Amino acid sequence: MKLTQPETVAGILFTDEYQLTMAQLYFRYGLHERTAQFDHFFRDYPNYGAHQAGYCVNAGLEWLLQWMAAARFYPADIEYLRSQTSQTGAPLFQPDFLHYLSQHGHFGDITIDAIPEGRVVHANVPLTVVQGPLAMAQILETSLLNHLNYQTLIATKASRIRASGRGQVILEFGLRRAQGFGGNAGARAALIGGAHYTSNVGVSHVLGFPPKGTHAHSMVQVFMALGGGELEAFRAYADVYPNDCLLLVDTIDTLQSGVPNAIRVFEELRRRGHRPIGIRLDSGDLAYLSIQAAKMLNAAGFADTVIVLSNQLDELTIMQILAQIEMEAPRYGLEADALVKRLTFGVGTNLITSLGSPALGGVYKLVALQERDGRWLPAIKISETPAKTPNPGHKRVWRIYDQRQQATADVLALAEEDLRSLDTLILRHPVEHNKYRVLPQSAISQIEPLLTTVYRDGQMAYDPPPVAALREQRQADLDRLDPGVQRLVYPHIYHVSLTEQLWQLKQSLIREAKGSVVT
Amino acid sequence: MKLTQPETVAGILFTDEYQLTMAQLYFRYGLHERTAQFDHFFRDYPNYGAHQAGYCVNAGLEWLLQWMAAARFYPADIEYLRSQTSQTGAPLFQPDFLHYLSQHGHFGDITIDAIPEGRVVHANVPLTVVQGPLAMAQILETSLLNHLNYQTLIATKASRIRASGRGQVILEFGLRRAQGFGGNAGARAALIGGAHYTSNVGVSHVLGFPPKGTHAHSMVQVFMALGGGELEAFRAYADVYPNDCLLLVDTIDTLQSGVPNAIRVFEELRRRGHRPIGIRLDSGDLAYLSIQAAKMLNAAGFADTVIVLSNQLDELTIMQILAQIEMEAPRYGLEADALVKRLTFGVGTNLITSLGSPALGGVYKLVALQERDGRWLPAIKISETPAKTPNPGHKRVWRIYDQRQQATADVLALAEEDLRSLDTLILRHPVEHNKYRVLPQSAISQIEPLLTTVYRDGQMAYDPPPVAALREQRQADLDRLDPGVQRLVYPHIYHVSLTEQLWQLKQSLIREAKGSVVT
Repeated sequence: MKLTQPETVAGILFTDEYQLTMAQLYFRYGLHERTAQFDHFFRDYPNYGAHQAGYCVNAGLEWLLQWMAAARFYPADIEYLRSQTSQTGAPLFQPDFLHYLSQHGHFGDITIDAIPEGRVVHANVPLTVVQGPLAMAQILETSLLNHLNYQTLIATKASRIRASGRGQVILEFGLRRAQGFGGNAGARAALIGGAHYTSNVGVSHVLGFPPKGTHAHSMVQVFMALGGGELEAFRAYADVYPNDCLLLVDTIDTLQSGVPNAIRVFEELRRRGHRPIGIRLDSGDLAYLSIQAAKMLNAAGFADTVIVLSNQLDELTIMQILAQIEMEAPRYGLEADALVKRLTFGVGTNLITSLGSPALGGVYKLVALQERDGRWLPAIKISETPAKTPNPGHKRVWRIYDQRQQATADVLALAEEDLRSLDTLILRHPVEHNKYRVLPQSAISQIEPLLTTVYRDGQMAYDPPPVAALREQRQADLDRLDPGVQRLVYPHIYHVSLTEQLWQLKQSLIREAKGSVVT
Repeated sequence: MKLTQPETVAGILFTDEYQLTMAQLYFRYGLHERTAQFDHFFRDYPNYGAHQAGYCVNAGLEWLLQWMAAARFYPADIEYLRSQTSQTGAPLFQPDFLHYLSQHGHFGDITIDAIPEGRVVHANVPLTVVQGPLAMAQILETSLLNHLNYQTLIATKASRIRASGRGQVILEFGLRRAQGFGGNAGARAALIGGAHYTSNVGVSHVLGFPPKGTHAHSMVQVFMALGGGELEAFRAYADVYPNDCLLLVDTIDTLQSGVPNAIRVFEELRRRGHRPIGIRLDSGDLAYLSIQAAKMLNAAGFADTVIVLSNQLDELTIMQILAQIEMEAPRYGLEADALVKRLTFGVGTNLITSLGSPALGGVYKLVALQERDGRWLPAIKISETPAKTPNPGHKRVWRIYDQRQQATADVLALAEEDLRSLDTLILRHPVEHNKYRVLPQSAISQIEPLLTTVYRDGQMAYDPPPVAALREQRQADLDRLDPGVQRLVYPHIYHVSLTEQLWQLKQSLIREAKGSVVT
């Protein structure tokens, strides 16, 4: 049985094998309890092909920390590791290491500083900084990336879809097209990033949102198969849900059958003193059909009903639908603005999968090891491409706001630097030697530290805000983010810089490492 | 707490809200226990943009059935539904319906016929046929689609990647880029579809495969930060894992540092009587670097070591790497074939997300309702596009093999038709009136029924085969599938047909429904 073993597939073994083989090596060399620092960050914003993100919305942290608080090597996990064999058939993991894991194989000695969920975040900025014993910090990598990459990806997509919808309600509908139970994380991230509601019942329950949904084509088909028709189905729905009557009108023919039948039922509801909610369109030319449906609804006195659009929507499709409505509505004597203001967008597959960019390439890189005397030794990897060389050492992250109260740069600094005490900031491009900005304090309205301690002593070190508060945080950050960076297509690149001191450290480490080639 | 509520987010509430509102409507109209049939199928093979699938590999069934056997409306679920409110603040779900769910809210009365996992499957063929009480069959939809869509998508991608790799070992590495815990389903599906192993420890454990993985860049960085170098790191790895020594050689510089250091360590291992496994390349021009690395390894007497390639691989990238090796290896005096035969491919993001086609559009359509006298009433939905009109009624599915023992068509037939008893088969195109094939029995070597009963009386009605057997089934089906259909780019379209009788039924239902517009 598999799903009945969540303790196996969703516990500490929710990781990659090489984390365990490396951990044993650290143990064998007495390095397993050496304090290490790993930084989690992403190098590139999601690129959807024809369009690109200029920012991300951070998400996933609370579920990661809950997983960490519960995960540890239980006896059954240890026994499984004991059964693994080397190529020769001998045990792969030795008893002393397994004994260590059985005693210390948990995340109780790990400390995490992170940028909170709901905040706008940028490429190459450490979003999550992990410090703790090398072996367990290494084992954490896979689950941390899994939890944070996906939710940040989806919160970002949801924020874009919300922007394209001009503030109209966005419904997350994608559970059936998600990666198994990952659909739950996707629904949560969508709510953080910009969806107003989700159809996912379980996630709505645990997060305290009302789940949304009315009926599918199958309900209409049931009445048709029994010899009735769409009208009977709609009447039944209005009968059972007189105050929540939202009807899917495209089972037979939207304008010839669905909308006229809906209007008949709405009139019956009105006579009984109820206010109908509206209709949903799920196929065809959604812009054209919404104009025609709105005209028919208006003519019948239902100008206050909503029109829900669904079917393969994403940010570009929504933009196009709204543009088409603006062109086409006046031709039919309809005010485009009034129509847009009654629309709701149901977004399924393309949100839950982040169509065009189905994974965020977040990474988790060793940046420093602590000496026994407390000194930090920076670690670096010389990659084939300079842009992939991580920024070394123990660091802090600051966000600089200009005199317009707009975020103008995120700055990585050494831990001991306090940017607020400097007269002038020199902001170095992370890779290109000749690119830098000089910023006097007079040009700055605020310097904000972004990282905060979220996990310590085996538990959350902060009170995780409800999703509603995370949404407010997101909106506050977007209000202070250059609209050029928020463009859905070809956005302006936000500045992520290094302080002069950090930049000098990085250069000296690269020189040193290059010099050590073939030792 | 959220993840500590798996019974909430992974139980019966792992569904869309509209399933519950429809179920209550059926209950109110006395239809909830009417036996219904829903067909699950997909309309389009995955289309990755520049390339397309010509077949899918069926997967996900066993985990779905396990979920079904455990899921039911527990008291806490009922209490949550009781708390949901209508627009007016009144309860959305009524006590009598909730009482019904508390008594009958499980899948014990559902029967499922399905095409087994591991089989090659095609568009518009019912893969899963659900019969049971309308309300619970409706509630099942979301979870069924979630479980089957994703695993079939990934098994298909894995099969393509395996084909591109010419039978060389494929490793699934994608957990960190998956949708949360969905990564477990992805790893299982990858193993069914074509990956030989996965790095996912928990899934390897429950499925009985050895998890694969050695070390990451971070291990090398640890030794560098402590004042050592790549060579010390490699020596440590060889010391701890003398019989499993596979070294990642691109932390500093692949050809200047990584491969020479690996060879030194391999020589030391050889002197101690161990056989080194090989190296992994994770950046740069993998074709060029594998040629150069192979030359260096050969010159040192390690021609039998493997070379693992990773970094953004998918089926097209692997095809291109192999093509480049064939062009370029001879220039460096290397036999291309020998190099290809020592390669292993580690595939992460692009497999676990099915890059380019991140969701399979599988649907779940009501096709028939049973009368109290046992007669089946076919249900149909007249969509805007004829291709989307489901094939109606109670059906069987047959696969026809020609005289070369190759599958030549999948045929949908009425339940009462036995294709084996007909002299001549007329195979109708599902949509186009003028397209049909006439097939005499003499042209046919085998007619195979594809659906088998897999779930009945609240439990699995078959003995689910181990993943190893599913892989054999997949290979047997691929051996009988036209290579043109297996092409990775622009594949030949496999025939999916209706029998004359089913085709006539569909036409009459469409005429009838069109006639009933605006009742």
